[in-house]
Amino acid sequence: MSVVVQDIKRAAPEVVKALGLCGVATVHEAMGRAGLMAPNMRPIQQGARLVASAVTISAPPGDNWMLHVAIEQVQEGDMLVLAPTSPCSDGYFGDLLATSAMARGCLGLVIDAGVRDVAELREMGFAVWSTAISAQGTVKETPGSVNVPIVCAGAVVNAGDVIVADDDGVCVVPVAKAGAVLKEAQARMAAEEAKRVRFAAGELGLDMYDMRNSLAKKGLKYE
Amino acid sequence: MSVVVQDIKRAAPEVVKALGLCGVATVHEAMGRAGLMAPNMRPIQQGARLVASAVTISAPPGDNWMLHVAIEQVQEGDMLVLAPTSPCSDGYFGDLLATSAMARGCLGLVIDAGVRDVAELREMGFAVWSTAISAQGTVKETPGSVNVPIVCAGAVVNAGDVIVADDDGVCVVPVAKAGAVLKEAQARMAAEEAKRVRFAAGELGLDMYDMRNSLAKKGLKYE
Amino acid sequence: MSVVVQDIKRAAPEVVKALGLCGVATVHEAMGRAGLMAPNMRPIQQGARLVASAVTISAPPGDNWMLHVAIEQVQEGDMLVLAPTSPCSDGYFGDLLATSAMARGCLGLVIDAGVRDVAELREMGFAVWSTAISAQGTVKETPGSVNVPIVCAGAVVNAGDVIVADDDGVCVVPVAKAGAVLKEAQARMAAEEAKRVRFAAGELGLDMYDMRNSLAKKGLKYE
Amino acid sequence: MSVVVQDIKRAAPEVVKALGLCGVATVHEAMGRAGLMAPNMRPIQQGARLVASAVTISAPPGDNWMLHVAIEQVQEGDMLVLAPTSPCSDGYFGDLLATSAMARGCLGLVIDAGVRDVAELREMGFAVWSTAISAQGTVKETPGSVNVPIVCAGAVVNAGDVIVADDDGVCVVPVAKAGAVLKEAQARMAAEEAKRVRFAAGELGLDMYDMRNSLAKKGLKYE
Amino acid sequence: MSVVVQDIKRAAPEVVKALGLCGVATVHEAMGRAGLMAPNMRPIQQGARLVASAVTISAPPGDNWMLHVAIEQVQEGDMLVLAPTSPCSDGYFGDLLATSAMARGCLGLVIDAGVRDVAELREMGFAVWSTAISAQGTVKETPGSVNVPIVCAGAVVNAGDVIVADDDGVCVVPVAKAGAVLKEAQARMAAEEAKRVRFAAGELGLDMYDMRNSLAKKGLKYE
Amino acid sequence: MSVVVQDIKRAAPEVVKALGLCGVATVHEAMGRAGLMAPNMRPIQQGARLVASAVTISAPPGDNWMLHVAIEQVQEGDMLVLAPTSPCSDGYFGDLLATSAMARGCLGLVIDAGVRDVAELREMGFAVWSTAISAQGTVKETPGSVNVPIVCAGAVVNAGDVIVADDDGVCVVPVAKAGAVLKEAQARMAAEEAKRVRFAAGELGLDMYDMRNSLAKKGLKYE
Repeated sequence: MSVVVQDIKRAAPEVVKALGLCGVATVHEAMGRAGLMAPNMRPIQQGARLVASAVTISAPPGDNWMLHVAIEQVQEGDMLVLAPTSPCSDGYFGDLLATSAMARGCLGLVIDAGVRDVAELREMGFAVWSTAISAQGTVKETPGSVNVPIVCAGAVVNAGDVIVADDDGVCVVPVAKAGAVLKEAQARMAAEEAKRVRFAAGELGLDMYDMRNSLAKKGLKYE
Repeated sequence: MSVVVQDIKRAAPEVVKALGLCGVATVHEAMGRAGLMAPNMRPIQQGARLVASAVTISAPPGDNWMLHVAIEQVQEGDMLVLAPTSPCSDGYFGDLLATSAMARGCLGLVIDAGVRDVAELREMGFAVWSTAISAQGTVKETPGSVNVPIVCAGAVVNAGDVIVADDDGVCVVPVAKAGAVLKEAQARMAAEEAKRVRFAAGELGLDMYDMRNSLAKKGLKYE
Repeated sequence: MSVVVQDIKRAAPEVVKALGLCGVATVHEAMGRAGLMAPNMRPIQQGARLVASAVTISAPPGDNWMLHVAIEQVQEGDMLVLAPTSPCSDGYFGDLLATSAMARGCLGLVIDAGVRDVAELREMGFAVWSTAISAQGTVKETPGSVNVPIVCAGAVVNAGDVIVADDDGVCVVPVAKAGAVLKEAQARMAAEEAKRVRFAAGELGLDMYDMRNSLAKKGLKYE
Repeated sequence: MSVVVQDIKRAAPEVVKALGLCGVATVHEAMGRAGLMAPNMRPIQQGARLVASAVTISAPPGDNWMLHVAIEQVQEGDMLVLAPTSPCSDGYFGDLLATSAMARGCLGLVIDAGVRDVAELREMGFAVWSTAISAQGTVKETPGSVNVPIVCAGAVVNAGDVIVADDDGVCVVPVAKAGAVLKEAQARMAAEEAKRVRFAAGELGLDMYDMRNSLAKKGLKYE
Repeated sequence: MSVVVQDIKRAAPEVVKALGLCGVATVHEAMGRAGLMAPNMRPIQQGARLVASAVTISAPPGDNWMLHVAIEQVQEGDMLVLAPTSPCSDGYFGDLLATSAMARGCLGLVIDAGVRDVAELREMGFAVWSTAISAQGTVKETPGSVNVPIVCAGAVVNAGDVIVADDDGVCVVPVAKAGAVLKEAQARMAAEEAKRVRFAAGELGLDMYDMRNSLAKKGLKYE
Repeated sequence: MSVVVQDIKRAAPEVVKALGLCGVATVHEAMGRAGLMAPNMRPIQQGARLVASAVTISAPPGDNWMLHVAIEQVQEGDMLVLAPTSPCSDGYFGDLLATSAMARGCLGLVIDAGVRDVAELREMGFAVWSTAISAQGTVKETPGSVNVPIVCAGAVVNAGDVIVADDDGVCVVPVAKAGAVLKEAQARMAAEEAKRVRFAAGELGLDMYDMRNSLAKKGLKYE
C-alpha cells in the first residue's frame, strides 16, 4: 500500500502565480469558505507568502523516509505537503532536507507535524508552515506514499492542488477550481479596495451594507 | 435580548493614559492580582502597548455582525473587546474592519476568538490581542449585544473599563477602581526602580527582603 | 524536605562552550535522541542560543520564593532551570529577578511555567525558554528545593547538567556524558557539512543514502 | 484583600428545588443562553443532578485553605463553587473535606481545578463537577476569599446564585433572575413535551417549524 | 452553495451488518490503517457498537438547522455524521432531535462538535460519538449542506460510507471498498483467534512471530 | 542503544501489597508530594486499584515491538509501564497483547500513549491507565529498550519501582523508599480515620487544625 504517483496534474502557472497575490483570507472566501487548514497550522517565519503546487506525502509517525522520495518528484515551483498517519510532533524536516528540496526548485513546506533547524530555515528563506517545532529526530524504517490524497490539519489535499499560505494560515485550492476561484478572488479584492476607501473616510458598515433595518427586524434594541 | 447600550462611563483620560505607562504585570499586581485574562490571550504583534476604554461586544460563534454595530459606538481613544457566546476560533476581524475602526479613533482590539489579515493589521499599526489567528470567515445572521458585561478569556469586562495590554497579556481595570489602581501601580513602579538598582549592584533578594530567617523557620536546609 | 544542595558538579567550561556551537537538534541526535524537552517549551525571543550549567529549582505552584534562593547558588556561566511541583502557568520570573540573576553572572532561564515582563527581558538580552507567558504574579509562602533532580517539560535535569537551547527547543546533557556527546555532535556537524554540499548540488538523498533498494524491498511501488 | 462575606442572599427554596427538575440545557435556554460554564467542566460521576445555592471560593493555585473557611459558611442546601486565581489542576478536595462538608448539609462541589479520592466521593454520593482529577495535594499557606464574585470555567458566579448541574455541565442562575428563569424553563419543558410526541410519531422538524420556505429563500437547493 | 444531495449510494445491508461484528480496531487494520477519526472523538456511552451508512452534514458553527434537513434524508439503518465548518463545541443535538431521528430509523450520530441531554440520550439507547458535551444551544439562521463530502475529526466521509464505531473510536469505510475490507477484516479476526489461544497458553510473541533474529540484527542487546 | 536489562530489583512483595491498600492520594502525600504522573494519565475502567512492580519500556512513536520483548521479562506480580520517545497517541496495546501479558502474570499497564480494544480489556479485567484511547495501530520496525529509566507522564520510573494506581491517577514509589513510604502512608491513613470521625460529627477544620489565628494574622477579614 506504499505508492509514489509520478504523474500529477498541476494548475496553469499563471493561475498559480495570480492566486498568490490574493492572500489566504480572500482565497478562502472565494472558495465558499472551504479548504482552510486548522488554525494550529502556523508559519515559522513572519511575513512570508507562498503559492505553489502540492507534492503530497503520507508518512508514518516519527518516520521521514518519504521526504527523500518526495523530493525527487518535485518540479520547479512545487512545494511539499506532509500529513502523518497519526498525530506526531517530531521534527521531520530540517536544514539538510531544505537544502536538497531547494536544489530541486521546491518553494516551501506545509506539515501537520514538527520541523527543526528553524533558525537556519528562516535564514535560507525556505517558507514553512507547521503544527509544531521540535528538535526530536525521526527514523527511516517504514515507507509511506507520495502524491496520494491526504488530510492535512483538517483539509483534504490532492497532489497538484494549489496551496496558498501566509501569516493567516494555509488554504487548499483544487486544480479543477483554480481558475474560477482566482476570478472570484480577484473580484473580491477589487470590491474590498472600494470598501476600504469608504471605510477610511469614516463611513460605517451599518450604512454601507444597509444593516440597520435587518438588525432591527431581528430584535436589536438601542438603549 | 440583543441590546446596544449607548451611554457608557469611561475613566478620566489622564488616568487612562497614565495606566498605560505602567505595564500589565504592574497593573495586575496593583489590582491585587485580579482582572488578568488567561495566558492564551496573546498579541499578534511584538512590542505593542495599548491602553484604552472598552467598548464590549457579545457575539454568536462565527458571526461578526455586532462588530459593525460596535464601531459606531466607539469614541476617540476607545478599543473593542469581543467575547463569543461559545468557544470559537474564527477570524471575526480583518483589515477592512480595522480601517473602519481606525477611522472612528479606535485604538485596538482584544478578542477571545480569531482574527485574520494579521500581516496587514501589523502594517497598519492596529494593536490586536487574540486567542487565535484564522482566515476562517464569519456570517452576519444573528445579532448579539454591545456594551453589556462580558467574560473575555476568563476576565469580566464591563463597558468603559480600562484595558491595559502589552507583550505579557491583557488586564482589565474597572472604571471605579482606575484612580486607586493607578496610584498603587505608580508606587510599585517607584519601589521597583529602587530595587532594580540594588539588584543590579549584586544585592540578593534573600538579603533585601530579609528572607533567610523565614525560610529556615519553614524548614529549608542547606547541604 | 526543602533543601538547597550547594556543591554541584559542572562540566568543563570548554566542553560547555563547544556544545553551544552545535545546536539543539545536533546535540539531541548525538545524545541518541534523549534529553529533549517537550515541544511546548518555547523561546520568548527569536534567534537566541544558550549553553550553560543548570542550577535546578523545584517550586510549588504559584510560588517563586526559591528563585531568590537559587540565584545565590549561581556561578558565572550558570543558568536557572525551574519545574513546578504541579502544572502552573503563572509568571514566576520578570525583569527584577533577571536583573538580580544577571548581576550574579546567570545566562538565562528555562522554566516549565510562565514568565512576565517579556518585552523587558528581550531588551535586557536575558535568554528565556518557557511554557507560558503570563503577568499573573506569585507568592513567597512555601519553600521548595534547589539543585535537586527535577523533571522539566518531560526531561530529567540534574544540577550541573549542560543545557543547550535555541529556536528548536531545549536539550539536557548529563555532566558525565558531556565530553562524549560533544565528540559525537562535532562528528555529526562535519558529516552534515559534507552532505549539505552534495544536496546543494542537486544530489538526491535517495542516491546519497542508497535507499532505492531498501524502499523497494519494503514494498514501495512507483506508478 | 482576603475577605469572608457572611451574609448572602439565596433564592427561595421552592424555586431552587423546581429549577433542579428542569435540567441544565433547558435552564440555559431559559437564561437566554447565558450562564453556562465551559465544556471542560465535567462531572466525576454519571447520572447525578444537583441544584443548590452557591458558596463561592476564590483560592490561590495549589492552596485549599479557604475550603475549610467556606465550609463554616455553608447552610443546609448550599454547595461550594471554587475558582483558583490562576489555572491549576491540583486536587483541592477529597473525601475528608467531603465528610466535613456533608456534615454541614453541603450538597456538592463545582471546581475549576482538580479533586481527588474520586472513588470515595462517588461512593459517598457527594456530587462533584471539576475540570481535573488529580491526586496532587495542596498547601494551606495563603488566604483567599469566600462569597466574593468569581469567574468559574468562564461563568460569573456570585454568592447565593443557583447552580444547576447534570451530565451536560453546569449553569449559573443569578438570584434576582431565578423566578423568571424558572417560569421560562417550565414553559419550555411543557412545549418540548408536546414536540416530543409529534417527533416520536414521525413528524419532521422541517414541517413542525415550517422551515422549508425560509431554507429555500436562503438558497438551499435539493439535488 | 447550500445543497442537499438526495440520492446516495449505500453498501449492501449484509456487508454493513457484517462489518459491525468486526470492531473498529480490526476494520481500521483491514483498511490499511486508513479512515480512522482522531482520538478526541469519544463515545458518550460505554459498550455501544454501531454500524450504519452515513448521511453527512456540513453545518456552520453554532447552527444546527441542517440536522432537521438531514433527518428527512435518513433511511432505516442510516446514521448522521456532522462536521462544523469551523471548530465548535456547542451542543448541536439533544433528546428532541434524537426522538425525531429515531422515528425515521436513524441508528446514531457521529459529530465533530458537542451534544447535550446526554443522560436522556443514554437512556434512549441512541448511540453518539462526539468531540464535546455541552448544554450550549445553537441557532437556525444559516444553511449548510447534506450528503456532501466532509472532513470529520480528521477523516474524510462521503455520503453512504459505512461508519463503524465502538469504545475505541470511529472508522470510515468507503462504499466501494466495503466488501474487500469486510473480507480482510474477517480473515484478521480468524487469525487473531488462533493467536489468542497460543498467547493464552503462554507462548511469547517473540517466538510466535519469530522476532528474536530481526531484533538482534537491528542491534538489541540483552544485559 | 537498544537494550534489555534483565535483572531488576523489586520491593518486597508484602510491602508492595500493603502499599496497594493505601490509595494514590495517600501514597503521594507520604512521598512528600513527589512521584505523581500528570493528570492526563487516566484509567480506562472505573474503580480499579493496581499495585505492582514496574517493567519499563522506552518505545519509538507508533512502534510497539518492545512490548513483546518486555512481556518476556515480566514476573508474576509485575506490570508494564511504557513511555514513547516522542508524544504519540497510537494504540500500542490491545486484547491480544493483554492475553499474552496475563498469561505471564502481568497485572496491568500504564502507558503515556494510546490503547485499543478497551471494551475487551475491561471485560478481561486487565487494568490500564493511558493518556489516549485510539484504534490506530502500530508497526514493529524499530527497537527500543526495556527496564531502562523512563519519564512517563512527567514522572521518572525506574525498573522495579512500585506503581500505585487508582481512579485518582498513578504514583511511582522508588524501590529504596518503598518501606519508608509505606510506614508514612499507614500513619496518614490512621490519622485520617480519626479526623473523618470528627468531621462526620460536624467539627470544623478551622477548629480541628486551629486555623483561626493564623488566618487572622495573614489578614483574613470577616464581613
